[in-house]
Amino acid sequence: MIKLPISLAALLALTCPALAQDAPDAPSPVQIVAEAAREEWVEISGDDLLVMTLAPDDDGTERTVVIQLMPAPFSQGWVENIRTLARAGWYDGITVNRVQDNYVVQWGDSNYDNPEADGAAKPLPEGLEVMGEAEYTVPSFVPPASSIKRELQGAATMSGLIAAGANVDALMAEPEPAQTSEARRALADRYSRFAAFTQGWPIGGRDEEFWPVHCYGMVGVGRGMSPDTGSGAELYTVIGHAPRHLDRNIALVGRIVEGMEHLSSLPRGSGALGFYTTEESAKRTPILSVRLASDLPEAERPAFEFLSTEGETFARYAEARANRRDPFFIHPAGGADICNIPVPVRRVAD
Amino acid sequence: MIKLPISLAALLALTCPALAQDAPDAPSPVQIVAEAAREEWVEISGDDLLVMTLAPDDDGTERTVVIQLMPAPFSQGWVENIRTLARAGWYDGITVNRVQDNYVVQWGDSNYDNPEADGAAKPLPEGLEVMGEAEYTVPSFVPPASSIKRELQGAATMSGLIAAGANVDALMAEPEPAQTSEARRALADRYSRFAAFTQGWPIGGRDEEFWPVHCYGMVGVGRGMSPDTGSGAELYTVIGHAPRHLDRNIALVGRIVEGMEHLSSLPRGSGALGFYTTEESAKRTPILSVRLASDLPEAERPAFEFLSTEGETFARYAEARANRRDPFFIHPAGGADICNIPVPVRRVAD
Repeated sequence: MIKLPISLAALLALTCPALAQDAPDAPSPVQIVAEAAREEWVEISGDDLLVMTLAPDDDGTERTVVIQLMPAPFSQGWVENIRTLARAGWYDGITVNRVQDNYVVQWGDSNYDNPEADGAAKPLPEGLEVMGEAEYTVPSFVPPASSIKRELQGAATMSGLIAAGANVDALMAEPEPAQTSEARRALADRYSRFAAFTQGWPIGGRDEEFWPVHCYGMVGVGRGMSPDTGSGAELYTVIGHAPRHLDRNIALVGRIVEGMEHLSSLPRGSGALGFYTTEESAKRTPILSVRLASDLPEAERPAFEFLSTEGETFARYAEARANRRDPFFIHPAGGADICNIPVPVRRVAD
Repeated sequence: MIKLPISLAALLALTCPALAQDAPDAPSPVQIVAEAAREEWVEISGDDLLVMTLAPDDDGTERTVVIQLMPAPFSQGWVENIRTLARAGWYDGITVNRVQDNYVVQWGDSNYDNPEADGAAKPLPEGLEVMGEAEYTVPSFVPPASSIKRELQGAATMSGLIAAGANVDALMAEPEPAQTSEARRALADRYSRFAAFTQGWPIGGRDEEFWPVHCYGMVGVGRGMSPDTGSGAELYTVIGHAPRHLDRNIALVGRIVEGMEHLSSLPRGSGALGFYTTEESAKRTPILSVRLASDLPEAERPAFEFLSTEGETFARYAEARANRRDPFFIHPAGGADICNIPVPVRRVAD
């Protein structure tokens, strides 16, 4: 089985009610992140960053979207296909073809899966892998019982558990103690036995399976009917409430870390599933190029980093997202949906 | 206490796994709704519909947004203020001032709560009510024990409970039987002890409190710092993942039932909180008028209806949203977030 360390930072925090003595000027989640130590930020490899350049908008404003690809063990076949497609220049000249409100924006070959296709499909480059449906999930890691017990013994309180960054699988497997049962309830959501963070990504899971989850801004691979699993040539991003029913049904490969507004604000298509109709073809936004950051000249190469989800700051940030105490709020919620705790990602200044 | 019937239709369904013998061509949620009996649709009063006309877009396309106001017992002070403001014509000539990606679009007086305000606030009409913060929630209804027992006895299985439309409060209060405990888990989410539907609206609650929840497209009342509760002059709608941390912190008054795309696709503001900066003031979309449907000439009066959340079709629809079996899907999710079960609303043909 694959070793997959899971941070409980965020989600064990979520059943802790706010304390009455909280200062009225408690820091906001943004302030907490701003104070993170330098070493809690993790650099994203240039091989995991896609730079997608859209045609300028009607005002001539340049539009660049940056996508972070997902690390192992998730979706690696598709991720590698996307690198192959980018290096072949296949994405250059494709368009945004579908914008469905409160659902997805999809870009790729305008003739793919389009009820109003008006031409032949664009030929794909050689060397693309074909993945099976089993690849939508990965097997989980179950640590030895000794390490489970140590984690729980060292965490007599909920906040202790949080600080200990206890392993999710361990918690789910162990029958005791009482705070474990509390933690289990806090971790469950309506789509999975638990939802938590690992390596900077939101994931769901149960039993011995993990999978990435469909939050706002996540990027996935369009596909046809089962058993087709898609190549990576057709991509979409979520522009509404998390469509978690797509989890385990379609491959997630990354997330948008900059320029999301250039996709989320596009005009909605009036065809079935939000595809632009033939009459609306002028609304299809051209994609001029898609490049791996590592393939760009050094001067044009963007650099990004994410806040470690295993660190102390992320735990505080997630807890503050779940229990807002900054001045605007009256009632801290006492919990937060996994998709309401976006992992902080920032551009590294030159 | 206020009597508040709650349908468990949707949410008790959510822990039922899909059956292996499900037909591969099982109906989609949309198909289930299309087959609802005529009498399951509930007409929306013209006093509960706001017709908001935006200035045409750059292509000259007309843009109309229709908002359904919330019924009693929720937010009635603010809802009445909104009727007062609409009848006074106060909204006419205001603008959309804030578009924050994955959060809200806000419209009202461009000088309200705007870090870059460039003028004096627009005077409000007389007769507006001032609400207290207690009005963000309503007390719940606890039925007599005899009716609780009858409901549970008549519901030996999960699907029986669903069909029985058992009362949420009853379920939460009763220690027995086993399926009740299962139902409790199915009802809980990370923001409330239960989240369910009543009178066509998604609500959360715990103990003896209920409140409407912030799903995509819900409309709320902008406010300043506590104890200000807002008048209804500043309104916002949710254009991203449900910001449930706003529940109980701000008044929800309705939802957008038509024309959501005219707001969700607006260009994002680059100022703090997504406000348009002074340099971007040309991006502020003018709102030409806001009228109650009942105040419009009969020929211009739109009519809408929603699918009863207490009916058999809504139960099937919610179950199908939680366990997608239409051909695209491989793994039914086994559950659904309250905000991933939008209540069907449709325009009544002339």
